[in-house]
Amino acid sequence: MAYLNENYLKLQAGYLFPEIARRVREFCEKNPDAAKRLIRCGIGDVTEPLPQATIEAMKHAVEELGHRETFRGYGPEQGYGFLRSTIAQHDFRDRKIDIADDEIFVSDGSKCDCGFILDILGDRNKVAITDPVYPVYVDTNVMAGHTGPIKADGSYEGIVYLPCTAENNFVPSLPREHVDLVYLCFPNNPTGAVATREQLKRWVDYAREHGAILLFDAAYEAYISQPEIPHSIFEIEGARECAIEFRSFSKTGGFTGVRCGFTVMPKSLLAQTESGKKLPLHPLWHRRWSTKANSVSYPVQRGAEALYSTEGRKQVRALIGHYMGNAKILRDAANRVGLQAFGGVNAPYIWVQTPKGLTSWDTFDRMLNELNVVVTPGSGFGAQGEGFIRVSAFNSRENAEEVARRLQKLS
Amino acid sequence: MAYLNENYLKLQAGYLFPEIARRVREFCEKNPDAAKRLIRCGIGDVTEPLPQATIEAMKHAVEELGHRETFRGYGPEQGYGFLRSTIAQHDFRDRKIDIADDEIFVSDGSKCDCGFILDILGDRNKVAITDPVYPVYVDTNVMAGHTGPIKADGSYEGIVYLPCTAENNFVPSLPREHVDLVYLCFPNNPTGAVATREQLKRWVDYAREHGAILLFDAAYEAYISQPEIPHSIFEIEGARECAIEFRSFSKTGGFTGVRCGFTVMPKSLLAQTESGKKLPLHPLWHRRWSTKANSVSYPVQRGAEALYSTEGRKQVRALIGHYMGNAKILRDAANRVGLQAFGGVNAPYIWVQTPKGLTSWDTFDRMLNELNVVVTPGSGFGAQGEGFIRVSAFNSRENAEEVARRLQKLS
Repeated sequence: MAYLNENYLKLQAGYLFPEIARRVREFCEKNPDAAKRLIRCGIGDVTEPLPQATIEAMKHAVEELGHRETFRGYGPEQGYGFLRSTIAQHDFRDRKIDIADDEIFVSDGSKCDCGFILDILGDRNKVAITDPVYPVYVDTNVMAGHTGPIKADGSYEGIVYLPCTAENNFVPSLPREHVDLVYLCFPNNPTGAVATREQLKRWVDYAREHGAILLFDAAYEAYISQPEIPHSIFEIEGARECAIEFRSFSKTGGFTGVRCGFTVMPKSLLAQTESGKKLPLHPLWHRRWSTKANSVSYPVQRGAEALYSTEGRKQVRALIGHYMGNAKILRDAANRVGLQAFGGVNAPYIWVQTPKGLTSWDTFDRMLNELNVVVTPGSGFGAQGEGFIRVSAFNSRENAEEVARRLQKLS
Repeated sequence: MAYLNENYLKLQAGYLFPEIARRVREFCEKNPDAAKRLIRCGIGDVTEPLPQATIEAMKHAVEELGHRETFRGYGPEQGYGFLRSTIAQHDFRDRKIDIADDEIFVSDGSKCDCGFILDILGDRNKVAITDPVYPVYVDTNVMAGHTGPIKADGSYEGIVYLPCTAENNFVPSLPREHVDLVYLCFPNNPTGAVATREQLKRWVDYAREHGAILLFDAAYEAYISQPEIPHSIFEIEGARECAIEFRSFSKTGGFTGVRCGFTVMPKSLLAQTESGKKLPLHPLWHRRWSTKANSVSYPVQRGAEALYSTEGRKQVRALIGHYMGNAKILRDAANRVGLQAFGGVNAPYIWVQTPKGLTSWDTFDRMLNELNVVVTPGSGFGAQGEGFIRVSAFNSRENAEEVARRLQKLS
């Protein structure tokens, strides 16, 4: 009989967000009246409409597909040149970061890319992951067989966990042991923390010394408000030799349902075979896309390109300004009731300590039942997330203000 | 130093279609005048505009995303209910095939699904692949480490090849040895062959006897013109216990650049752990999508749904009628110059024997240079493809007629 991939059986029962959805659904069925006033600050999903520049570009591209003269079939598997060069120019070269057009690989989202990247990496790599962490980094490694079984605290054997706590400002210290792959996410999901140039330089130095690769998730870079904070790992000297960066249009252009992101894979990044031969990863990544995909929907790529137009950039800035206004309201409200709150300054997430004596899921349930507000329990992101909840700033201003009011009951 | 996945190094240098693209580019640079009269019947890419029903549905969906009230962010990772149920109803239940809505998994194309499916299958499976074959089945198995090194004839150690020749009407005989996974594609790419109900039943019987899984690629089912030929493996009794089906909107709605397809994963399909425990694959596949993806762009899913409307179905039938008209013209033209031609009756591909003494690539080069027509060399699909070329019917009528005229010079 055919074999299944039994690494999947090691995964804990519920991926975090489906479990939240299940509890919310159950609550709404039992409490139809309270359900009507429910406000969701749980899953980090945007709420505001797409920028008008994207709407127009997508409609125009759809119309092109309706005429023989302008119809397009299969596009280049790594993304259209128009989008790759726009990204490389605006996000990198205009900021004096040396990235070539063909080092940009367009995808249908950075969640997907975080999983896909393991396709081209070996099975013997020692993987380091921050705690708390975006669950996708962990689960995709479990699925790929890079871990042992799960332990009682929800962590997996074989993974090196890097604690991110209030004590280290949620930026992990270097591991004491050798690791080969390190997942870093700044601005961070879920803590909202950012890393300074000096902190990132320490990681680049570690990676170069150990021949490690930094898998740098910069999905939230557009939310950085402090000018001294780097937006890209490639702002750090030497990163082209040790880092891969993931970017997304989900939280800049509101593309969570439109689906587009990209990976930056520098040609100067090497990895080794088991016999010690050093080879660039870029051709493997290129080949992965040629063989396993046909790139992203043409109208979507045009929609993403439009985010970089003069109008598009203005509209994106307004969107981000809106969400960051919410973040300030929510962070201030948490502080007012005596809950310590982190993040929310360079990121759309506020990482809030739970009221004394309550676990993350206790607080989740209490907020669902008493305040009719959905948040994300911090423990869903890892053992170090226990005692925190993540509050998302993705909402209307009205809802953010209402959540701020309701939070006063939580003290 | 971090390890790379060195299975990638076993892949032969060029994936077929990039290699064709390279030779065509070189020819065009050297022969700018001939380049102007070049007609492409190589890569199986559609040429006609999207159905109007899809254009309207996609524009409407884009407009929805431009307003707060109708905006949608993250959709269900397995696809929207509206699309899953439309597919299950029209493609299966209306044809008396028992498939539930949640056995349909929406994706961005069946090429992608063919690779993704290996995520949930074990590494110890013995894989059988037809020869000739769509290269993606082979290459994704090479990448996943399911093969040994490549041999001189382009085949890989560890894979069981099932020859498809004129003698067996391009429908493979059952393997003499035990295999766990069998890739079958009908209507076939590249040969254009179809399998009868009796032939498919033999495969289902084999799979059930051996506990094997049939990976059934039905991307071209809409091209079937003979009413007795099954469109789905699930028309065969017992297939729900041994088959997974891949479908695509690429060649029905012209979605090669829009990107949408789906997998049918029956809940009754089991596979085993290494210790012999039998478990359904459906929850693993569901989990794969939850963890590694965020489904397909909302406007794209609305565009796919529109293919099933009354207008949409009429427009799809017209598209297919157009391409199948081309197929007849091309097949007749090949026959007229004494070349034996297969396919083209229930599939948009014609599988043509090369002129005496010429290899597939010889014929490719000769047609490129003398006729300025791009075809696909059969040997690119496997050793048994040597001595054939694949001619695609995806073209304008004018181009198909012109290719038919030029073919007369090949005798």
